[in-house]
Amino acid sequence: MLPKALLSRGAALAALDLSLPVRTAQRAASSVTIPPPACMLQPLEVPTRYLFGPGPSNVSPRVLAAGGRPIIGHLHPEMYQIMNDIKKGIQYAFQTSNNMTLSMSGSGHTAMECAVFNTVEPGESVLVSINGVWGERVAEIAERMGGKVHTLVKSPGGHFTNEEIEKALAKHKPVLFFLTHGESSAGLVHPIDGIGDLCRKHNCLFLVDSVASLGAAPLLMDQQNIDILYTGSQKALNAPPGTAPISFNDRACHKMFNRKTKPVSYLLDMTHLSNYWGNDGKPARDYHHTGPVSGFFTLRESLAILAEKGLENSWRQHKEVAEYLWKGIEDLGLKLFIKDKDLRLPSVTTIAIPEGYNWRELLTYMMKHHQMEMTGGLGPSIGMVIRVGLMGYNCSKPNADKALAALADALKHCPKSKA
Amino acid sequence: MLPKALLSRGAALAALDLSLPVRTAQRAASSVTIPPPACMLQPLEVPTRYLFGPGPSNVSPRVLAAGGRPIIGHLHPEMYQIMNDIKKGIQYAFQTSNNMTLSMSGSGHTAMECAVFNTVEPGESVLVSINGVWGERVAEIAERMGGKVHTLVKSPGGHFTNEEIEKALAKHKPVLFFLTHGESSAGLVHPIDGIGDLCRKHNCLFLVDSVASLGAAPLLMDQQNIDILYTGSQKALNAPPGTAPISFNDRACHKMFNRKTKPVSYLLDMTHLSNYWGNDGKPARDYHHTGPVSGFFTLRESLAILAEKGLENSWRQHKEVAEYLWKGIEDLGLKLFIKDKDLRLPSVTTIAIPEGYNWRELLTYMMKHHQMEMTGGLGPSIGMVIRVGLMGYNCSKPNADKALAALADALKHCPKSKA
Repeated sequence: MLPKALLSRGAALAALDLSLPVRTAQRAASSVTIPPPACMLQPLEVPTRYLFGPGPSNVSPRVLAAGGRPIIGHLHPEMYQIMNDIKKGIQYAFQTSNNMTLSMSGSGHTAMECAVFNTVEPGESVLVSINGVWGERVAEIAERMGGKVHTLVKSPGGHFTNEEIEKALAKHKPVLFFLTHGESSAGLVHPIDGIGDLCRKHNCLFLVDSVASLGAAPLLMDQQNIDILYTGSQKALNAPPGTAPISFNDRACHKMFNRKTKPVSYLLDMTHLSNYWGNDGKPARDYHHTGPVSGFFTLRESLAILAEKGLENSWRQHKEVAEYLWKGIEDLGLKLFIKDKDLRLPSVTTIAIPEGYNWRELLTYMMKHHQMEMTGGLGPSIGMVIRVGLMGYNCSKPNADKALAALADALKHCPKSKA
Repeated sequence: MLPKALLSRGAALAALDLSLPVRTAQRAASSVTIPPPACMLQPLEVPTRYLFGPGPSNVSPRVLAAGGRPIIGHLHPEMYQIMNDIKKGIQYAFQTSNNMTLSMSGSGHTAMECAVFNTVEPGESVLVSINGVWGERVAEIAERMGGKVHTLVKSPGGHFTNEEIEKALAKHKPVLFFLTHGESSAGLVHPIDGIGDLCRKHNCLFLVDSVASLGAAPLLMDQQNIDILYTGSQKALNAPPGTAPISFNDRACHKMFNRKTKPVSYLLDMTHLSNYWGNDGKPARDYHHTGPVSGFFTLRESLAILAEKGLENSWRQHKEVAEYLWKGIEDLGLKLFIKDKDLRLPSVTTIAIPEGYNWRELLTYMMKHHQMEMTGGLGPSIGMVIRVGLMGYNCSKPNADKALAALADALKHCPKSKA
């Protein structure tokens, strides 16, 4: 059978000729017994959705177009230039001058594992603050690789005072302290000021997760003495998931490049990744793994959009739209899960589940009738909240109005239990 | 500054309103000190290339278009359907009925680490055959996670007899034996028949890397008793890099789901990944990590193209085009690195570096004057070969002619040393 679909749809790259001499009489020696699956002979179907949950958020046409461009090799000089641009774009977004700045070839969890695997050696003490799902994940990752994990725990929506943190630093003497800046499972933006200083005082690295907050809430890596910072591509940056910016300062580099043992993962070993990103000062970049070329195109484009817009404009935009959304939610008679305005994450708003309603029914209704995603809680916040995310490209008052209209409609049409 | 580029270029998704009330007088409390980088205010530039190296290969317009489609959430039912389709597409491409079939959210190295991390526990014996770079990588991965690694080594281009393999299996009693089917660094396709039986006899899992061979050379996972098989998206499948199909049979599942210790990586833990792919029989899929939505769109499309074309047609196409290329290379007076025709990988051809020539100059010449990528060796084969890949979408006689013309031109114009 000739590759019909290719021939009919492949005209744009005509230079790559496809005319194939196919002999139908000859049969390969080895025998295929499993036939082509019927589903694979159907076209790819993707519905249009308002992605107003905690991410992935909608990808702008400009970023989608970047992802649909013909690729080049992952080791071509032009790809290195694109990676250099990405590095500069991340430095701007993170507000850091760290040389050791790059993107992971994977989602935020890849960055999370990379940070822990490279800076902690088996047997070393790690302190993890848990006030939602992300701390739970880091504790599990650090435990698996042999770290001695200590935790500071609050229920979802809670946060830690600098006094609590310093007490735990003094007690557990960790090499690494983890904190989530944007706790998207609870809708909390955690205060950062002063914690980096405490970590320095106690000879500990300060690792911050900004997957849900980057570009949406003020964060200044260098000024706030954050030693390791990572984020994801699919939130306020509005690129498809699959890349994750990360940066290590000199303190972090000193720790991770003076290890006694190799990191347990070859794929996530920063010795190799730093070379792949041209950060190690060596003249040549060696082959380590094949980076997601199209993913890097989209990440570059999304970082370019942020640079054009300006970080402070982006922060202000998220704050204003979030405040508008919060007011609208309260006008509907709903309660916001995070009471203190200053602790509310501007990118992901958590609504306390209204009494008498089944949250799953509300979400299902909005998906069915408004093609709109909002989500429930995650990990410890399941059953406590409904989450609404308006991030980056999605962050506008008209979109907030759409979200509010869908919520109002769901509240009106979903049955309320007679408790 | 208004996001001009977004406003002017974002018309296609007009429903997602972008009108932003930006107040220029107000200033955020925290202060941005690092300005937007100049490079980020320049457009993304990507040259057009013939990717005739060992991969990534050119992506067809149809697959690129799939990657440029608006995304949906990674946990939407429609995404699960796309993942189910991908699973069926991989089962066809691998010729397996294994339920535990899925795609990694990462490149082939992610699949490599996943296979080793899940099936080996610290202290267990692993046997790795090394006849190029891939075995070296697996040995390093297994060593880092605490495996007792034994190796069978040949120089690049060499292969192992079943007798040699059985002797090593009997001696080292490994729980896992690794072999590369398509050794792209040397251009060798390794015989597979009988090895799976030997592994069963010696109570060992048979792990095969088919990153460079899948769809190009016959491989039948179930019939050949391969316990774990993985590949990459960016070779004969012609999707962008960033996804990696993998499959485990019941023997492999029994080993990996009856461990005493947890795998060292949370991200690559098959307990979680099997749930994410709906393979564990549980009614709900939990959030584990955010999969590369666009990457899965492209992988589905590339597997659909293979299903439409037919696996046997694809194998035949690669064989015919490779034979045509090999003859053309010999007609140029060049020597093929792998002498035995039956051991030559149809997707990636290795040419012995012609005497008197600097291989780097030849490659640079073709890139500069023909916009064509061929590559040198990799790992132990560096300085031994030039590699030409014509895979999937790129696999045609007219493309072979283009490659031969570029080679002839480079040989004519690059200076030959007077050795």
